[in-house]
Amino acid sequence: MGLGVGLIGSGYMGKCHALAWTSVATVFPDVRRPRLVALADATPELARQQAEAFGFGKGTGDWRDLISDPAVDVVSIAAPNEFHADMAVAALEAGKHVWCEKPMATSLEDAIRMRDAARRSGKTAILGYNYIQNPMIRHARTLIAEGKIGVVNHIRLEMDEDYMADPAEPFYWKSERRSGYGALDDFAVHPLSLLSILHGRITSLVADMAKPYEERPTRGDGYRLVENHDIAQALFRTDAGASGVLMVNRSAWGRKGRIALQIFGSKGSILFDQERMNELQIYSTNDPLDLQGYRTILAAPTHPPYRQFIAAPGHGLGFNELKVIECYELLQAIFGEHDAHVIDFERGLEIERAVHAAAQSAEGGTWINVGSVGFLMMPETLNPS
Amino acid sequence: MGLGVGLIGSGYMGKCHALAWTSVATVFPDVRRPRLVALADATPELARQQAEAFGFGKGTGDWRDLISDPAVDVVSIAAPNEFHADMAVAALEAGKHVWCEKPMATSLEDAIRMRDAARRSGKTAILGYNYIQNPMIRHARTLIAEGKIGVVNHIRLEMDEDYMADPAEPFYWKSERRSGYGALDDFAVHPLSLLSILHGRITSLVADMAKPYEERPTRGDGYRLVENHDIAQALFRTDAGASGVLMVNRSAWGRKGRIALQIFGSKGSILFDQERMNELQIYSTNDPLDLQGYRTILAAPTHPPYRQFIAAPGHGLGFNELKVIECYELLQAIFGEHDAHVIDFERGLEIERAVHAAAQSAEGGTWINVGSVGFLMMPETLNPS
Amino acid sequence: MGLGVGLIGSGYMGKCHALAWTSVATVFPDVRRPRLVALADATPELARQQAEAFGFGKGTGDWRDLISDPAVDVVSIAAPNEFHADMAVAALEAGKHVWCEKPMATSLEDAIRMRDAARRSGKTAILGYNYIQNPMIRHARTLIAEGKIGVVNHIRLEMDEDYMADPAEPFYWKSERRSGYGALDDFAVHPLSLLSILHGRITSLVADMAKPYEERPTRGDGYRLVENHDIAQALFRTDAGASGVLMVNRSAWGRKGRIALQIFGSKGSILFDQERMNELQIYSTNDPLDLQGYRTILAAPTHPPYRQFIAAPGHGLGFNELKVIECYELLQAIFGEHDAHVIDFERGLEIERAVHAAAQSAEGGTWINVGSVGFLMMPETLNPS
Amino acid sequence: MGLGVGLIGSGYMGKCHALAWTSVATVFPDVRRPRLVALADATPELARQQAEAFGFGKGTGDWRDLISDPAVDVVSIAAPNEFHADMAVAALEAGKHVWCEKPMATSLEDAIRMRDAARRSGKTAILGYNYIQNPMIRHARTLIAEGKIGVVNHIRLEMDEDYMADPAEPFYWKSERRSGYGALDDFAVHPLSLLSILHGRITSLVADMAKPYEERPTRGDGYRLVENHDIAQALFRTDAGASGVLMVNRSAWGRKGRIALQIFGSKGSILFDQERMNELQIYSTNDPLDLQGYRTILAAPTHPPYRQFIAAPGHGLGFNELKVIECYELLQAIFGEHDAHVIDFERGLEIERAVHAAAQSAEGGTWINVGSVGFLMMPETLNPS
Repeated sequence: MGLGVGLIGSGYMGKCHALAWTSVATVFPDVRRPRLVALADATPELARQQAEAFGFGKGTGDWRDLISDPAVDVVSIAAPNEFHADMAVAALEAGKHVWCEKPMATSLEDAIRMRDAARRSGKTAILGYNYIQNPMIRHARTLIAEGKIGVVNHIRLEMDEDYMADPAEPFYWKSERRSGYGALDDFAVHPLSLLSILHGRITSLVADMAKPYEERPTRGDGYRLVENHDIAQALFRTDAGASGVLMVNRSAWGRKGRIALQIFGSKGSILFDQERMNELQIYSTNDPLDLQGYRTILAAPTHPPYRQFIAAPGHGLGFNELKVIECYELLQAIFGEHDAHVIDFERGLEIERAVHAAAQSAEGGTWINVGSVGFLMMPETLNPS
Repeated sequence: MGLGVGLIGSGYMGKCHALAWTSVATVFPDVRRPRLVALADATPELARQQAEAFGFGKGTGDWRDLISDPAVDVVSIAAPNEFHADMAVAALEAGKHVWCEKPMATSLEDAIRMRDAARRSGKTAILGYNYIQNPMIRHARTLIAEGKIGVVNHIRLEMDEDYMADPAEPFYWKSERRSGYGALDDFAVHPLSLLSILHGRITSLVADMAKPYEERPTRGDGYRLVENHDIAQALFRTDAGASGVLMVNRSAWGRKGRIALQIFGSKGSILFDQERMNELQIYSTNDPLDLQGYRTILAAPTHPPYRQFIAAPGHGLGFNELKVIECYELLQAIFGEHDAHVIDFERGLEIERAVHAAAQSAEGGTWINVGSVGFLMMPETLNPS
Repeated sequence: MGLGVGLIGSGYMGKCHALAWTSVATVFPDVRRPRLVALADATPELARQQAEAFGFGKGTGDWRDLISDPAVDVVSIAAPNEFHADMAVAALEAGKHVWCEKPMATSLEDAIRMRDAARRSGKTAILGYNYIQNPMIRHARTLIAEGKIGVVNHIRLEMDEDYMADPAEPFYWKSERRSGYGALDDFAVHPLSLLSILHGRITSLVADMAKPYEERPTRGDGYRLVENHDIAQALFRTDAGASGVLMVNRSAWGRKGRIALQIFGSKGSILFDQERMNELQIYSTNDPLDLQGYRTILAAPTHPPYRQFIAAPGHGLGFNELKVIECYELLQAIFGEHDAHVIDFERGLEIERAVHAAAQSAEGGTWINVGSVGFLMMPETLNPS
Repeated sequence: MGLGVGLIGSGYMGKCHALAWTSVATVFPDVRRPRLVALADATPELARQQAEAFGFGKGTGDWRDLISDPAVDVVSIAAPNEFHADMAVAALEAGKHVWCEKPMATSLEDAIRMRDAARRSGKTAILGYNYIQNPMIRHARTLIAEGKIGVVNHIRLEMDEDYMADPAEPFYWKSERRSGYGALDDFAVHPLSLLSILHGRITSLVADMAKPYEERPTRGDGYRLVENHDIAQALFRTDAGASGVLMVNRSAWGRKGRIALQIFGSKGSILFDQERMNELQIYSTNDPLDLQGYRTILAAPTHPPYRQFIAAPGHGLGFNELKVIECYELLQAIFGEHDAHVIDFERGLEIERAVHAAAQSAEGGTWINVGSVGFLMMPETLNPS
């Protein structure tokens, strides 16, 4: 039998993990069916009920039990963000592999602590950046790597949704400062994960953050000041020499799951929008002049690992299936595949650093060198071990 | 525990069924987890291997064993089309519920035999018309039922792919007459299943069938005459008084999974294309004049049962997930839900009748009354029992 | 100076002609500026007023005066349809070139009479099928002629608007039988003009016509039966061996100026929609497999005669500018250019014949040989003079 | 008769002006037909030839002759950018109205000089920002003004073309520093003119400029360093309290005439792209929840002044026709219409100031207060007279 799986958290993302663990062996013929060992949630009752619903062997109200269970080889962490660091570090120290939902942590210190734990453990530790698993994103990566659009020189990244767009929506924890910067850490990590896969790393940036609504109604009859920013944008430069713009907005009426990429190179360009996740657009100067134009490539069996899901082109993968691919890639990483297509804790920390750099820049109004962030803030981490 | 499942066939559609049976209880909290009892395939070895891969308890090389297994309550039939009738009839006669892949059968006689067996058995017997399960199609049905586009008066249906589009593709069984009419039965059943859900039934039609290529190369160095038609189209009238056009083409270069609907009513219109299956377009005269235009609605938690899969709007369901919904609806039907959203064998037979009517019309060049087809051809079925 | 122009009719299409005559020499450097000699309309007052507004030298209430004016070399006919035949024949007999708005005539007899007059006169006589002048349509023609999509084997043509879509719209002359068949002659001629340019001629067809509304309110308080058909569709075969479907609907809510073409060949396909008239889509199997997809080509200086209007690509031509191109092509034809891109009265008559064949088929419910129409109906026209 | 027109320059934009002057009275019934008095170009020969081609009464090699001609009431300036200021100031001082192509001038000093001359003259002086004349942009302005998307809080502006995208394109004057900043003044003025019409003014910004190619081949066999920037972007805040991003790129492969707007408000959002200039998209929370989505509104007679050009909706205006509307609005302004929809020299100067502020910010890497630009740079202009 396959690896033993422990799942912490059974809300929406927990369900996603459960579906992935359930389906991965059916979809990928080279995978041994994982054993769904244990599920942990806030109370023993809830945990037992969800374990039954999701097909796990048992439920527990204490995630530390799950982590110390010798039958568990890999721990899925889909608990609230503030627990990610403690759970991931504990699991790694217990010798388990870790699959942790994004965002990595609620502070850069915690993210560094997680990265250090992963380094020390030698275990596989990855983050749930599922958008990178889209076959169309991988196809974009291949096309870029093959030079199909030449040398990339300009990039625009947008991520927008509208769940905070209604000014009549009462104040809740998402607008509290302690929940984070706002759109910046809710969203920016996603396009940055794609940038990391497709191109490289942001080296410097200048950012701005904005509040569409200064205050929001409380459940009572008053108003409360909004403490973080639903909108953020940054100008940036990358290690590969490109300029770019990053834009995120969680109060963008009409946008539901938009992650729009525009990548310009010396021989063409590539466009992508997650709202049409089965499509990729490319403009190539290799085409004859009278036939140049953006072409829309539909996801197909020629774009791995689409073929494992569907035999015919153009039939469409879904968001949840990206998680199944992520699960597969996690297994590849665990079993030593060096090309496993994952964002591990090392790379995840880079992404976190860019987010914190943006927040710092927005406060100061100046360009920031991303590499300096964290080290400046927390010099003690320079010699982590 | 839930129902006992037997699966016949473990190719692409068998895998789809396996994924659906595996996932349905994780996705839908009110479902008891089905028991994956047995899988049948062409040889015992293959069956055992696939049973292990898909998580079924055992494998068998004889589908009759599976059907007679008392632990099996419901039989998924994903075997080649020519076996559908025998398998379905046998399963029904053994008191099992049946979930049979489309097309229903390779002859109208067989389809009638299946419908009759379903009637006699009192068991649930449905067909795998998964496109009707798309939340956007259901939303279209709701909008039409609520009168949002008024009285429907005109409908255009297209289904196109390009797997037969290459004239250099060697002759294979798909081009043999005995495999069926060609595009007509490969494709037409799908838009007709949607028409059945959204509007009604074709009462009369005139059809044409065409061959893009008269012959195809053989694997050797010769050519063989193509025996059926990759292209078909029909003008039709429906029982609800609309006129329409049905167009199918399996040699349509560029089309990958297109199922395009245009539904016009007295107060608006609705557009859909399966290649963008998470979108629905509606034009409504209820909008203020200066704001009228097609709007694109993205699949969202407000469109059941999207919410069971994803908590956020616009994130995208996939083709395979339609099968999970279909599995859920099958279970609803089995447990007596009268509104279960399925195409049962009765309705499936109506669809088959329209397909055979089109073929008959294409041969004769005249309008055909769909209701008369089958009865004219096979009068002995008028008193089936 | 250039040719002397007489314009009959100063309504919407008359204005279009006036704009074309005014602009053609500014746009095309090789054209000598036409002299705007005279404008005729229903009354002398209206004619004089419009002559001044449109920059014509004089106005007249009698179109026969205009036709007999020796300063007039070419006559633009933008008067109501029922006068087309008499005006065109008279102008041709007076030795003038003729530019007649579509539809050619209100009866096939009249159309034949016009064709015959054109033959006898030796003058240039063309019809106002401006959609063929779109640079993107010409580009499509070039691509097809170069074999870029191989041998064309299937074609779908749609033309839809919604000006008759409101059932509350009072009965007016458009719904009277004597105004014509309805959508068939209002619209079908346009896609057929495109088919004529891009591919060939319909040789046989079977058609259906439908009424979305059986009756319409009168301006009083009653209802009046609708006498013609807002919807029509036909299955057809062409002289070049393709099958196809023609669909027209003037009560299609949401469609404003849709003329959608789908042209499938053995090596690719081409899509076009007049509502996005500056775009052409092509799918080509010449592309590498991993880059195949519909590409959207934007109108550009590389697509003649776009460059005469705009120096930069993607900036967009408008509907009215197609009329300027048509005017230029008319001048080319007048000055003896054999490749002038126009629909003359010969070709126009073919289009009319297909429309009448469709109406005849819709009545009889059977396939019709287009070539036989007119000759069967009006044998006396076989020896027209 | 109408006003006397003098046109300076007969290249591409000169042709645009000529077409506008020729067509404006035919299109707009309330306009008296302008007299095309004189055309000036570099040499008398060229001027005479173009005067004949464009229908002007005479040609001159000296633009000062044209300006001093008493028959000339209004001067169209379509000469190279470096002459704009001298020509405009001279024309205004000669008591003529001025229609000057964009960009206003090649230095902020010149722009201020032009604005001052306009103030002193009391004549109408406008700039050729034709994109604001699009009926869909005006419709957007109406919708925003009516509060259809609530209070605007975030704006993204993009303008991209690819005429500098090819690194093999030899160095020419566009890459010289003295031709300007690069994309910033080639493009940024256009989206800023739209921002000015739709929303308001940029008050502060931080910008970045980038070179996709550090050097370009010379016509010989060498290379020459590129002196300005093909790419620029800025984060900004507006006087109306919105945050936003401005992005321009003249080396963006695949983009031909893209001017993309995203305008987010508290009750909806509006999208526009000039490459599909006859479409406007709006998302409105006034729609019922189950019908919310971006709707695409097609240009129609309900969007002034579309009706003057075309009687039917969805048929499409072109880029050149925006110039005809601009010409009409110029005449409205000249004849005292206070709501004339134009960018006059006052407003044009504001746009210039934002461009220079962006360049200044890009150099210094810090946020700039736009209002201070120019005054800081050129304090002598504070008391211009």
